[in-house]
Amino acid sequence: MTDADKVYRDIEAIRAKAPVILSITNYVVTNTTANALLALGASPIMSHAVEEMAELVAISGGVVINLGTVAPEYLAAMEPAWAAANEARVPVVLDPVGAGASMLRTVTPLALLDSHRPFIIRGNASEILTLAGDSASAARGVDSTASSDAASSAARALAMKHACAVVVSGEADIVTEGGARVRVLGGSPLMPRVTGLGCTATALCAAFAAVNANPLEAALHACIIMKVAGEIAEAKASGPGTLQLYLYDALYNMSAQDVSDHIKVVR
Amino acid sequence: MTDADKVYRDIEAIRAKAPVILSITNYVVTNTTANALLALGASPIMSHAVEEMAELVAISGGVVINLGTVAPEYLAAMEPAWAAANEARVPVVLDPVGAGASMLRTVTPLALLDSHRPFIIRGNASEILTLAGDSASAARGVDSTASSDAASSAARALAMKHACAVVVSGEADIVTEGGARVRVLGGSPLMPRVTGLGCTATALCAAFAAVNANPLEAALHACIIMKVAGEIAEAKASGPGTLQLYLYDALYNMSAQDVSDHIKVVR
Amino acid sequence: MTDADKVYRDIEAIRAKAPVILSITNYVVTNTTANALLALGASPIMSHAVEEMAELVAISGGVVINLGTVAPEYLAAMEPAWAAANEARVPVVLDPVGAGASMLRTVTPLALLDSHRPFIIRGNASEILTLAGDSASAARGVDSTASSDAASSAARALAMKHACAVVVSGEADIVTEGGARVRVLGGSPLMPRVTGLGCTATALCAAFAAVNANPLEAALHACIIMKVAGEIAEAKASGPGTLQLYLYDALYNMSAQDVSDHIKVVR
Repeated sequence: MTDADKVYRDIEAIRAKAPVILSITNYVVTNTTANALLALGASPIMSHAVEEMAELVAISGGVVINLGTVAPEYLAAMEPAWAAANEARVPVVLDPVGAGASMLRTVTPLALLDSHRPFIIRGNASEILTLAGDSASAARGVDSTASSDAASSAARALAMKHACAVVVSGEADIVTEGGARVRVLGGSPLMPRVTGLGCTATALCAAFAAVNANPLEAALHACIIMKVAGEIAEAKASGPGTLQLYLYDALYNMSAQDVSDHIKVVR
Repeated sequence: MTDADKVYRDIEAIRAKAPVILSITNYVVTNTTANALLALGASPIMSHAVEEMAELVAISGGVVINLGTVAPEYLAAMEPAWAAANEARVPVVLDPVGAGASMLRTVTPLALLDSHRPFIIRGNASEILTLAGDSASAARGVDSTASSDAASSAARALAMKHACAVVVSGEADIVTEGGARVRVLGGSPLMPRVTGLGCTATALCAAFAAVNANPLEAALHACIIMKVAGEIAEAKASGPGTLQLYLYDALYNMSAQDVSDHIKVVR
Repeated sequence: MTDADKVYRDIEAIRAKAPVILSITNYVVTNTTANALLALGASPIMSHAVEEMAELVAISGGVVINLGTVAPEYLAAMEPAWAAANEARVPVVLDPVGAGASMLRTVTPLALLDSHRPFIIRGNASEILTLAGDSASAARGVDSTASSDAASSAARALAMKHACAVVVSGEADIVTEGGARVRVLGGSPLMPRVTGLGCTATALCAAFAAVNANPLEAALHACIIMKVAGEIAEAKASGPGTLQLYLYDALYNMSAQDVSDHIKVVR
C-alpha cells in the first residue's frame, strides 16, 4: 500500500465515522480549525469548561491541547481533559504555541508533558527546539525563526522521550517518532501568511489519530493533506485571504487522485 | 401577502432600522455571526461583560443567548442579560448548543428557561429533543444524530411550554409555536460542513425578532433566508470554504426576486 | 517624497522586518486582524495572559490595546501591557471600541489614558467624540451614528491632550495630531458591512508604528492602505463576504503602483 493509498484510506475513515474532536484551543483559531475539521469530515467541539471535560473526552475520538491562549481560564481545562483522555485511551495532540516566546508558554507544555502522555506533538522549529531544551531557539512571538530541518534532532529526542510522534512544521515538515524520520514537501509559500494553519495541522493530526492507531502515520497523513490542500488551493488563490477558503474546499473535495497527484514524501 | 412578500418586508425593515443585536455567544462564531448580521443590515455587538449587560440590552432590538461556550465567564452574563431583556420586552433567542452532549450543556439552558421567557428557541434535533426531556436523543458533540422531523413533536411541546417559537434546524427546518408547524426546505448540503451556520440562523432570528413581533414569523423568516442564501451561495461555491463567503454576499444582496425564486415552505 | 512613496517605503520596511505586533484585542477579531497583519508582512501575537505581558512587549514592535471585549479577564492584561510598553518605548495604539455605548466602555479607555501614553488612538466618530468628552455623541452599540467630519475638532483636542495621533474612521478617515489634519478618501461602501475592519485599521496602525516613529505618518499610512486595499478588493468582490478575503489578498500583493493608483489624501 503506497503512502497515498494509506492517506486516502484514512480520509475515507474520517468521512465515514465523523469522529468528534475536542479542542481546547486558542481564541484566534476556534473558527478556522473547526471549519477545517468539518471540511475533512470530522465533528469538532471547542470547549474550555472544566466541568464538562471528562464527558466530552468520553465521546471524542481525539483531543487537541493547543496552548495558543495561555490565560488561566483556558489553561484550567487542559489538565483534566488530558488526564481523562489518557485514562480513556483517547489520543491527545499537543500544540505548544509560542513555546520560547514567554516563560509561561515554555513551562506550561513542559509541565503538562511531565504527567501526561501525548500521541503527537506538533509545533514549528522554535517551539520544538524549546520543548527539547534548546534555550537558544530564539522564537519571535509565535512565528519560528529556525528552519524545520534545524529542529530535526530535537524532534527525534522529544519523540523518544515521550514515546510519541513529533511534527516540526515548516517549508518542509519533519515527522518523526524517534527511529523513523520523514519529510513532507509541497504546500504553498502563502501558507505562513494565513494565521493558524499550524493549529489547523494540529487539529487534523487529531482527526487522523481518531482513525489510525499509529502516531507516526496519523501525524504524517495530516501533514500530507495540509501540503496537498495548500497546493490545490494555491492554484486558485490570489493571496492568503482566498487561499484559506480554497484550502477548506480542497479538504472537502479531496480525492484519491488529488492525494497521489500532489503527495511529496521523502524518507 | 405571500410568505416571500412578508420575508422581504422584514428584510427591508432590518436594512432601514439597523437594529442593534446583542449576542452573548460562543468564541467559535463571534466573527461569523457578526458578519452575517452586518450583511443582512443589522448592527451586532458581542459581549459577556456583566457590568454592561443592562445598558446594552436597553439599546438592543434583540438578544442572542448562545450556549456554545459554557465556561463560567461566559455564563455569568446570560442571566442578567436575559432578565434585563424580559423586563425591557426585548426579544431573546436561545441557542442551546450541545444540549445533551454534557450535563452542563443540558442543565444550563433548562435552568435559564425556568425563570426567563424566550421569544424563539433554535437548535438542532438532538438539542431540541434534550430540552424537551428526551434523554435518549443521543447528541454526538455539537452535531445532531437525529433528523429534524424526529424532533417535531418535542419542538411543539417545548413551544407550548414556553409560549415561544421553536426552530429545529436540519435538512428541512421545522418551525412551530405549538399550533402551527411549518417546514422550510432548500439550502445546500454544504451548509453542515461550515461551522456555526446554526448559530448564524439563531443570530438572524434575533434580527427578524427586532422588526417582527410574531415569534413564528420572525423564526420562519430567518430560516427562509438562510436556505435561500445557502442555495444562492452553493451555485457559486466550490466547497464549504467559499460557500460561507458567498452566503454573506447573498444576504447582503438579497432581493425580493431572490426570495421568491428560492423560497420553499411547506405548511 | 510623495505620500505614496512614503507609504510604500513603510510597507517594504514591515515586509523586511516582520515586526511582532502584540494585540490584546476582542474575541470577534482575533483571527481577522491576525490575518491582516500577516498579509501585510507583520508577525501578530494575540494574548491576554497577564504573566507574559512584559515579556511579549519586550519582543514587540507595536502593541494594540483594543477594548472590544471588556470582560475582566481581558481588561486585566491591558494596564500591565501598556505600562511595560511605555517603559520600553514600544508604541501603543488604543482602540476604544464602543466608547459611549456603555459606562464600562466609556470609563475604561479614559482610565487607561489617565496614566499611560498612546502613540495613536483610532476609533469611529462616536467613540472619539465620547473620549473627547462629548456625552451627546450617541453611539448605537459599536457602530457610529456620527460622520467622521463631525468628530474632527474632538479628534484634534484629544490628540493635543495626549500628544498622539488620532484617527477617526469613516467614509472619509480623519487623521490628526493637533496641528495637522489630513483626510483620507476612497475605500468601499461594503467595508462597514464587514465586522472588525476598524479593528483591522487599528492593528495596521501598530504595524506602521513599528517602522515609523512619526505617529501622524504611521496612522496616515495605515488608513491609506486600508482604503487602497478596500478599493482593490471591491473591484473583485460580490459582497462583504468576498470583500474581506480580497482585502487580505490586496494587502499581501500591494505594490507601489497600487498605492499610487488608489491613494486619495486631502490636506
